[in-house]
Order: sequence, then C-alpha cells, then structure tokens
Amino acid sequence: MDDFDEATDRVLAGLERKSRVMNLKEKERVAHHEAGHALLAEARASADRVGKISIIPRGVAALGYTKQLPTEDRYILTRTELLDRIDVLLGGRVAEEIAFGEVSTGSEDDLQRATDLARDMVTRYGMSESLGLAAFEEPRRALFLDIPSAARKEYSEATARAIDAEIRKLLESAHARVCDTLTRQRPVLDALARLLIEKEVVDRQTLVQLIARSGGAEAAAQSA
Amino acid sequence: MDDFDEATDRVLAGLERKSRVMNLKEKERVAHHEAGHALLAEARASADRVGKISIIPRGVAALGYTKQLPTEDRYILTRTELLDRIDVLLGGRVAEEIAFGEVSTGSEDDLQRATDLARDMVTRYGMSESLGLAAFEEPRRALFLDIPSAARKEYSEATARAIDAEIRKLLESAHARVCDTLTRQRPVLDALARLLIEKEVVDRQTLVQLIARSGGAEAAAQSA
Amino acid sequence: MDDFDEATDRVLAGLERKSRVMNLKEKERVAHHEAGHALLAEARASADRVGKISIIPRGVAALGYTKQLPTEDRYILTRTELLDRIDVLLGGRVAEEIAFGEVSTGSEDDLQRATDLARDMVTRYGMSESLGLAAFEEPRRALFLDIPSAARKEYSEATARAIDAEIRKLLESAHARVCDTLTRQRPVLDALARLLIEKEVVDRQTLVQLIARSGGAEAAAQSA
Amino acid sequence: MDDFDEATDRVLAGLERKSRVMNLKEKERVAHHEAGHALLAEARASADRVGKISIIPRGVAALGYTKQLPTEDRYILTRTELLDRIDVLLGGRVAEEIAFGEVSTGSEDDLQRATDLARDMVTRYGMSESLGLAAFEEPRRALFLDIPSAARKEYSEATARAIDAEIRKLLESAHARVCDTLTRQRPVLDALARLLIEKEVVDRQTLVQLIARSGGAEAAAQSA
Amino acid sequence: MDDFDEATDRVLAGLERKSRVMNLKEKERVAHHEAGHALLAEARASADRVGKISIIPRGVAALGYTKQLPTEDRYILTRTELLDRIDVLLGGRVAEEIAFGEVSTGSEDDLQRATDLARDMVTRYGMSESLGLAAFEEPRRALFLDIPSAARKEYSEATARAIDAEIRKLLESAHARVCDTLTRQRPVLDALARLLIEKEVVDRQTLVQLIARSGGAEAAAQSA
Amino acid sequence: MDDFDEATDRVLAGLERKSRVMNLKEKERVAHHEAGHALLAEARASADRVGKISIIPRGVAALGYTKQLPTEDRYILTRTELLDRIDVLLGGRVAEEIAFGEVSTGSEDDLQRATDLARDMVTRYGMSESLGLAAFEEPRRALFLDIPSAARKEYSEATARAIDAEIRKLLESAHARVCDTLTRQRPVLDALARLLIEKEVVDRQTLVQLIARSGGAEAAAQSA
Repeated sequence: MDDFDEATDRVLAGLERKSRVMNLKEKERVAHHEAGHALLAEARASADRVGKISIIPRGVAALGYTKQLPTEDRYILTRTELLDRIDVLLGGRVAEEIAFGEVSTGSEDDLQRATDLARDMVTRYGMSESLGLAAFEEPRRALFLDIPSAARKEYSEATARAIDAEIRKLLESAHARVCDTLTRQRPVLDALARLLIEKEVVDRQTLVQLIARSGGAEAAAQSA
Repeated sequence: MDDFDEATDRVLAGLERKSRVMNLKEKERVAHHEAGHALLAEARASADRVGKISIIPRGVAALGYTKQLPTEDRYILTRTELLDRIDVLLGGRVAEEIAFGEVSTGSEDDLQRATDLARDMVTRYGMSESLGLAAFEEPRRALFLDIPSAARKEYSEATARAIDAEIRKLLESAHARVCDTLTRQRPVLDALARLLIEKEVVDRQTLVQLIARSGGAEAAAQSA
Repeated sequence: MDDFDEATDRVLAGLERKSRVMNLKEKERVAHHEAGHALLAEARASADRVGKISIIPRGVAALGYTKQLPTEDRYILTRTELLDRIDVLLGGRVAEEIAFGEVSTGSEDDLQRATDLARDMVTRYGMSESLGLAAFEEPRRALFLDIPSAARKEYSEATARAIDAEIRKLLESAHARVCDTLTRQRPVLDALARLLIEKEVVDRQTLVQLIARSGGAEAAAQSA
Repeated sequence: MDDFDEATDRVLAGLERKSRVMNLKEKERVAHHEAGHALLAEARASADRVGKISIIPRGVAALGYTKQLPTEDRYILTRTELLDRIDVLLGGRVAEEIAFGEVSTGSEDDLQRATDLARDMVTRYGMSESLGLAAFEEPRRALFLDIPSAARKEYSEATARAIDAEIRKLLESAHARVCDTLTRQRPVLDALARLLIEKEVVDRQTLVQLIARSGGAEAAAQSA
Repeated sequence: MDDFDEATDRVLAGLERKSRVMNLKEKERVAHHEAGHALLAEARASADRVGKISIIPRGVAALGYTKQLPTEDRYILTRTELLDRIDVLLGGRVAEEIAFGEVSTGSEDDLQRATDLARDMVTRYGMSESLGLAAFEEPRRALFLDIPSAARKEYSEATARAIDAEIRKLLESAHARVCDTLTRQRPVLDALARLLIEKEVVDRQTLVQLIARSGGAEAAAQSA
Repeated sequence: MDDFDEATDRVLAGLERKSRVMNLKEKERVAHHEAGHALLAEARASADRVGKISIIPRGVAALGYTKQLPTEDRYILTRTELLDRIDVLLGGRVAEEIAFGEVSTGSEDDLQRATDLARDMVTRYGMSESLGLAAFEEPRRALFLDIPSAARKEYSEATARAIDAEIRKLLESAHARVCDTLTRQRPVLDALARLLIEKEVVDRQTLVQLIARSGGAEAAAQSA
C-alpha cells in the first residue's frame, strides 16, 4: 500500500528532493500554506477530501504537496463546485496572510489557476450576472495552428473591462470566504502546520482527528 | 431500422461510451439539460422536430444527445428561424437553471454556438437595428492563409462596443423567452427528465405523447 | 444563341444545380430577392441593364441570379455610379423586407459587397465630406506578402470611428432610397416574383414589358 | 527626337493601349483630370514644368498621363516644395470637381500619394506645428525582414489622433489652394481639356501658348 | 582562496578588462554607484551581505561590480524580501543622484530589473492592494513557441493603467526609502567611493569596518 | 596625415560623390545645416569638438558631413551629456529655420536620432520626472527572434500618452535652447556657411578662428 502511495505521489508531484533544503522560515511558511489548502478542501462540501499533506520538496518546483482523493470522475461542474475549487486554491495564500501577516511568491501558481477558473466562469460558462451568458472565447482551438492572435479576442475594450471587474469580484469574494474559514479555524491551522514541520507528512486519519478535536471544521463546513 | 438509427447516431455523436459513468447528480443534470433542448425544439415553430433524446455518453465529450430530424435541406434562414435556433441552444442551460437553481459547465458549447449565431446576425446578416446593415466581417476567408490578424477587424472600438451590446441584447431576450417557455412547461420538463434517467433513451413517439398529455407544449407553441 | 447564353451563365454563376431543391417559402424569398436586384438595376440610370433573371440554383452557393448586361468597359466610376451599384446590391434585401417583413441570411454576400464599396468610397476615393480626401488604406498591396498587419491600419481610433459612422450613413441613405423605389414599384415586384416562381427564368424582353405595363419603373427612374 | 520621347513615355507610363477604348464621358473626365495636373504644375513655382499631356491609355492602369520635365536632380525638398507637389497631385481631382461637380475613382492613386506626402511631412520631417519635431516613424527599415508590426508604431492613440488631424489639415489647405487656382483658370482648364479630347496629346509649346493667351496662369502664379 | 575568488568573479561578471579605461568623472560615478548598491545591501535586513565591491571593468558591459554573498538557497520570497531587493537595485542610481545631483545611463539595467520585480509583484504574486490577487500573466510559457502575442495580454486597458500606476507607486516608495537611507549614510557613501577610486577593490572586512566606524549603517538598518 | 584623414572620412561617411551635383539653393541649405551642427558641437560643453566640416556629398545619402573628434571612449552618459547630443543633432535643422525661415527634408535622420535619444531618456534611463524611474522597454532583445510584437509593449495607453508628451517636452526645450544659441551666433553661422560654399571643406583651425573672431561662441558657451 505504501509502495502504491509513493508511486502515485511520484506521478502527481515528481520525485522527492530531500537535497532541496529550505530554511526554517520557509518551512514554516510552506507548512502553513499546505495546511491552508488542506483545511479548505475539508471545509468545502464539494471539494475532494484530503488524502495526505507533505512538505517534502518534490519534482521541479513543488515545495509542499496536498493530495486530494478523487472520489469519482466528474464530467460537469456546477457554479458552486467551481467556487469551492477557487477557495481551495486560495487556502494556501490566505493561510500565509493569517499566520505571517505577509504574502510571498509561493502562491504564484495557485493565483494563476484561480484566476483562470474565474475567467472561465465569466467568459466560457456564462456564470457572471453582469456579463450575461454570452461566450467570449472559443473553447475549441486548432491543435497545431494555435497562433496567438489579436483577432481571437473579438470583444471590445468595454467588455474586456467588465470581464476584468467580474474576475476581480469573484476572487475578492472567494478571498473573503477563505479568510473567514481560516480565521475561525486558526488553532487547527497552527496545529496542523506544527505537525507538518515536525513530521513532514500528515495522513488523512491524523488530519481528520486533528479537525475533530478542534471541532472547528464542522462549524466552518456548516457556515460555508 | 434500429441498425440504421444507431449508424446515424454514431456518425453524428460518436460511439456510445457506457464506461463513462456519471454520478446520479450529473445524470439528473444531463437529463434536464437534454429535456430542455428537446422541449424548446418542439415549442419553436421553425425548429426541426426531435427524433430521439439520449443520456448515454457518446464520442469524445457528449454526455447527452438530442437528435433533431432534418425535415428538408435549408439554404436560407430568416431572422425568426435563427432566433428559434438560439432558443433551442439555450434550452439546456435554462432547464438547469429552473430545475437546480444553479448553472454548470455543461452549457459551454451551447453558449459558444448561441453567441456565434447572435454575432453572425449582427455582423454578417445585418439583423441588428442599432448597427444597421453594414457587414463587419468578411464571410469568405482565404482557405490556406487564414492567418489571424488584427487587420481583419477593420472596425472601431465604438463599433466593437455596439456589437457586444447587441449580441448581449439578443441573448438576453432569447434567455427570457426560453425561461418563459420552460417555466410554463415545468411538469413536462421534470417528467421527461425522470423518464430519461429511467430509460436513458426516449424516442419521438414517447416524447410527443408526454407533451400531449400535459397539454403544455401546445400552449407554449401558441404563445411563442 | 441559347448555347452562348448558357455558356456565359455557366462561367458567371456556375453549373445549374437542379438537384438543389428549395422549399416553396425559400423559392418565394429568392424570387423576390432577385426581382429586387433586377428592378433596382432598371431604376438606376447608371446601372447596367438586366439581361436575364433566374432562380435556378447554380454553382457552389448561388440560389438565384440576376445577369446584368455590361454595355461597355468602364475604367472610372463616379460617386453617383458607385451609389447606384450599392442600390442594386441592396435591392434584394429590401425586396425581402417589403414582401416578408423580415430579412434572411440570403443577403450576406450583398451586404458585404455594399459595405466594401461604401468603405472604398470613404477610405480610398475621398468621397466622404466628414473625412475629407485623405486616403486611409493603401491601394497597392504586395502580391505575395500580403501579411495582414495592425501596422497597415495607420489611423487612430477617432478616425476609425469616423469611417464607421460614414459607412453607416452611406448605407442607410442607400437603404432609404431603395425602400422608396421598391415601395413605389411594389406591384411590379410581386408580379415579377410570381413570374419567376412560375417560369424560373425571366428574360429582358419580358422584364421590360412587365415594367412598361405597370408604368411604375419610369416614375421611379424619374424620381430617383 | 520623337523616338526618344516615345521611349521615355514607354518607360515612365508603359506601352500605349489603343485597345482600351473609353466612352466619351470618361474621356472628358480624364482630359479635365490631366489638364488639372498640368495647370497646377505650371502654376506652382517649385513644380517641374510640364513636357507633355496625353490621354492615350498606357501600361496597366494609366488612363491619362502628364509628363513633368525633371529640370535637375533634387536631394532636399523644402516644406513649400512638398506642398507644391501635393497641389499638383490634387490638381486632377479638383479639376473633376469643378468641371463635373462630382468626383470619381480616378483620383485614388493621387490621393494615396498626397496623403503619404502629408504623413511624411508630419511624422518624418517635423513640419507640423501641432506635433512638433519628434519623428514618429523609422525611416530606415530592414530590407528583408519588414514584418509589419504593431510594435513599429510606438506612439499613443492621442498622438495618432493628432497626426490624423494634422494630415487632414494639410490636405484641406491644399484642396482650398488648388480650388482657388483652377477656379480662376477655368477657361484655360476647359480649353486644354477640349484640346486633349480632340488631339489626345498636347505638347509643352501648345500648353504654354494656351496659358499665355488666357493670361490666367501668370495671375494664378502670382497669387499662389 | 584568492584564485577561487577570482574564478567566481570571472563566472559572475566576466574577465577583467583593464584596457577599458574610464575617465576620472566616470570612475567617480561608478564608485558612488557601486557604493550605493553595497550600502543598501548592508542596510536591508533580508538582503544578502556584500562580499566584495570592485570598479575594475569586467565582461561585456559591467563597469563596476558588487558581489553579494548568497547565504543560502531561497525558494520563496516574501513581499518584504522583494522590496529589499528593489531597494538594493535602486541604491546605485540614488547614490548618483545624491553625489552628483544628476543621473546617468549607468542605471539602465538596474531600473529594468527593479521594474520587472515590481511588475511581477503586481501581476504574478498578487501583492498589490489596488489590483487584488488576480494573476495577469501566465507564468509558464511554451518553451519553443513563445511567439509574443497581443492575445497573451488578456486584460483591458483599464487594468493595464492600474498595473502601470501600481508599478510606479512601488518604485517611488522604494526610491524614497533608498534616498532616506543613503542621505543619512552620506559620509560612509563618500568614504567608500573614495576608497574604491583609490584601491579599485574593497573586501567585506574593510566595508564592515568603514560602516562600523561611521556608525551610520546600524542607525539606517534600525530605521529601515 | 591627409591620407589618414580621408581614410577615416571614407569609413565614417562613404566615398566622395563629386558626381552628385546639388543646385546652389541646396548647397546653401546644406552649408547652413552643417554649420549649425558644428556651432552647436562647439557651444555645448560636453559635446565632442569638431574636426572638420564638409559639404562634398559622400556615400549613399550624406550631402554634408560634420566630423566630431572623439576625445576619449565614453561608457556612461549623464542627463546633461544626452541633452547636449540632442542639441547638436537639432543644430542643422534650426540653422535652416533661422537662415531660410523654412525647414526641409534634410533633417529627417537628425530628427529620428534626436527622438530616439529622447525616448531612451524617458523609457530606459528613468530621466523623466513625470514618468518616474520605471523602465518601459527591455534593453536586451533576443538576437535571432526579435519578432516585433504588441506584447513587447507592456504599458497602457495612458503611459504611452505620457511618454509621447515627455519626448515632445524634451525636444521642444532642446529646440528653444538651440534657437537661442544660433540666433546669438547668427553672424558666425552665416560666415561659416559662406566659407563652406566657397571652400567645400573647413578644418578645425579655421572654424576655431572664425568663432574666436566673432567672440560669439564663448558667450553662447557661458549661457548654455
């Protein structure tokens, strides 16, 4: 079982890089960042449950790694499910804000993915009230001729401005929701981070017990 | 006859993918989505009649499939006929709104096609009052040198803004019409979706009987 | 003589496609559309006279076909002659408006060509008062290196907006003129369309007699 | 001498195309157009003198042809000399306006060249007061890599608008000057055009005598 | 040890170019410029300590060279750490301002790198309050197809304006901070520059003693 | 010595083209133009001294030629030194303005280079107060893949407008300074131009004597 677990980790996040030694401050930051992702994944009803959290560097760039358990194949995602995914992505960044009062470069990839999701909601799925249900970008692009082009963007500057404003609104609401969740779960967040610094890896069972003990997660899940 | 039917389905929507197992929630959503398309096709005077509705996944991406019967080759489409086509495309999305109070990613392709139709009405067919009958995009493009280009878009930002506003107006009116149709046909919508979940495939005869029994479709057709 | 006539038709509009069977509604629409082109060509002093009108589908896309007789080679066109050509192009669309109260996709190519003529008047021939006689687009383009480019369009957004407004004004005036001509010739329009539906092809002699009998064309020509 | 004259004509304007038969109206238009060029060339102090005027079609596109005698090689042109060249270019168009009250497509190339000169004055030679002496376009471009590019145009929309306005102002002043010159020389203009229609070719001697007899040219030259 | 030191210098900044003889004014400028970098690196808590300062020209373009000692590998940088890096980059420019009352072309590379850092803070790391945490540029680009493209920049002009304003604000605050630090350390700045002109190379020990003697650096570090 | 002098001239400006015969007016213009460059070079403290002035056409395009003596290699240029270079570039144009009351195409290359310098001051060297010290263009470009691109220009239209305004301000101030210098040195300007027309080449010694005799240059240098 452990062998299989290591195999999927290797596929999903790359080989362990024990040689990549972070200093203590970075380690504390990564631990809180991953704890933030994990607690949000547990707090959001539609998110995949957390299987394992690790702060052993892996692959080319990953400093930490929160593995979610794909419970089943999904073909359609609702608006709520997309918002929950954005929340999980912002969990790491907000944890850093709360624990250190300052953000870092460590959320770059999360922010890019959250912005992409928000943009898709607005421009491809018709999920923005202020923009209506028009589609602003072609979903199917030529495979070999994807020459980037100004002609691809067919909408006006006025529409571009509305899209930007809507993306920002989606991300700001998500940020507020995630702040709320993690502020209320602050003790679990710190405890989980401490455990990660100590053990480097935390499995689902330990995580669930930690949350249960604090009782904070259920409350958050209810309010979410 | 069944063999022939399966053959055209295969050509139009790809091979059945029984291995692609949706969860119940997704199935309910797909069923309502396809029921929405089907009821709109029946409710709009100029739309091709429905031959079959299926929620057996097919081909690369289709989760459901509403086959319309092409009654004859068409060479010209009037403004009304184009609007009816937009209504049928939005039927799936609005059915989801009505049945679940929330939209999903499942309408992405429908929205893209409805937006394309609305854009063509405004920029190629001179069907927008606020923009007049000028053509804003070249219909015939070089076959092998279709290099996307900013030069292709010869109009001003002011015109781009007017085009965007007109597309939005066309889609919002369509959305309102479709909401109206499906709200009044809510019982048939739910019944058809339930039948689809149960049988996976509904043929024309069953559909027509269902609509006739409820009596709602005729009323809708009259008011449309 | 008939052989020669068929030969030029084949060159100009492609082979007859008797297999392309339109439904009656489309046939009526095409007949009125071509009748509109023909009556405008006869009503405008500088337009080439009509040689033949046909609603037998030809070539790749043509559903109908109004052959004008090139009376002589022309090397220069005056402003009035260009406006007359725009009027003839809009004749089909306006006939549809008048006869059916609704437009169709059938005018796409006419609108594109009328817009191109109007754009050329404004940007290449200095025929717009509000834009003056500056030329805004290069008439001679490299034959093999016609890479479309944002650099080609050297003018400002303010100028682009003025060009768009001027094109629109030209087309709206043309539309008003054509509406006026065809409204006053409504009986001939309907008679010619009926004749086309019945015979599929109408020659010059028949057309001239039809117009003479109604007496409407001369009146229109005088008022134009 | 005649052989040599024909040889330079052939090089400058192409082979005679006697087969290209214009109708009388076009011939009258071309005759006035070329007469306009010729009178402006004689009326502007810095312009090269006229050697010959012809309305025999030549080469690919020329319907008429006014040959100016290059008196010497020029390496620098002053602002006044550039304005005189613009005036000569507009002479043809204004002659059509004055003689026929309507312009034609025949000035397309003249307008393009006049606009290019005006643009160069504004963007390359620092000859516009409202834009100052900044250069807005690179005079030396890579010979084989002249990929058109948005990056080439480094200035703002506000500057583009100012450039457009300045080009327009230059052309409008030129138009007014040329109108003034040709209106005062109307009798010579008509006489020269009549002579061209009759003889097809007018040499310098005849032109000079015609202007001398009317006495109008000198007056115009003084007032210019 | 000296051999090793020279080897890393050679790798980091290129071969010494004793043939590149600067005039005295340039030498004084370069000395103050490098002294500015060095004092800022020592004054900012998170910056890497200075190992050596040299004004012997090296490599293709470097006129001077301040070597910082990488104390450890860093994987994440906080907002404060990024701001400290910007401060060190601006140290050279501000030293020139203070010592000579005039800036030079010598800071071009520093300004580019400082601007890039500020832009990344705003567009990739979500570190700007006025723009929120949306990501405006894709961090991962195709390796071999990095065709620059207008389509890559998906945001509106309004967002571009906000990004520009935010970058400017970040750089202006940094400029004010650096001015403050160097103004208070003016005596050390001049002394260090004089020492560099005299010796061409200053090692860490000498730098630390210089700062300690003046006592100014600690004060600056406290206030920073 | 003369052989060596001719050799460097040949390298810097191309072979003499005695066959390129300018008319007297052009010669006078070129003489004043070069005299303007030369007097400005002598009047600006940081400019390289003039070695020789010539109005013998050379190379592909040069009609005149003012050779400055590079006194030493320069690696850094201060703001003042850049402004002095702009002044020297504008010297030719302003001399034409003063002597002839009218400008010509002869300054095209000077204006382009002056504009480029002003643009670099604003966008690369942070020398504009209104734009601050942000760098707006990348100094190092890929050598073989310098595909021009809209993406390269990362700043907003608002910033582009500010850059344009700042470039204009820099050039207008320079123009005013140069006008001032040459107006006060008008007698030397005319004398030097006369000497150039007479001798075609003027060496440093003659130039220095001419300026000394008039006494105007020193005064100008003091006021500059």
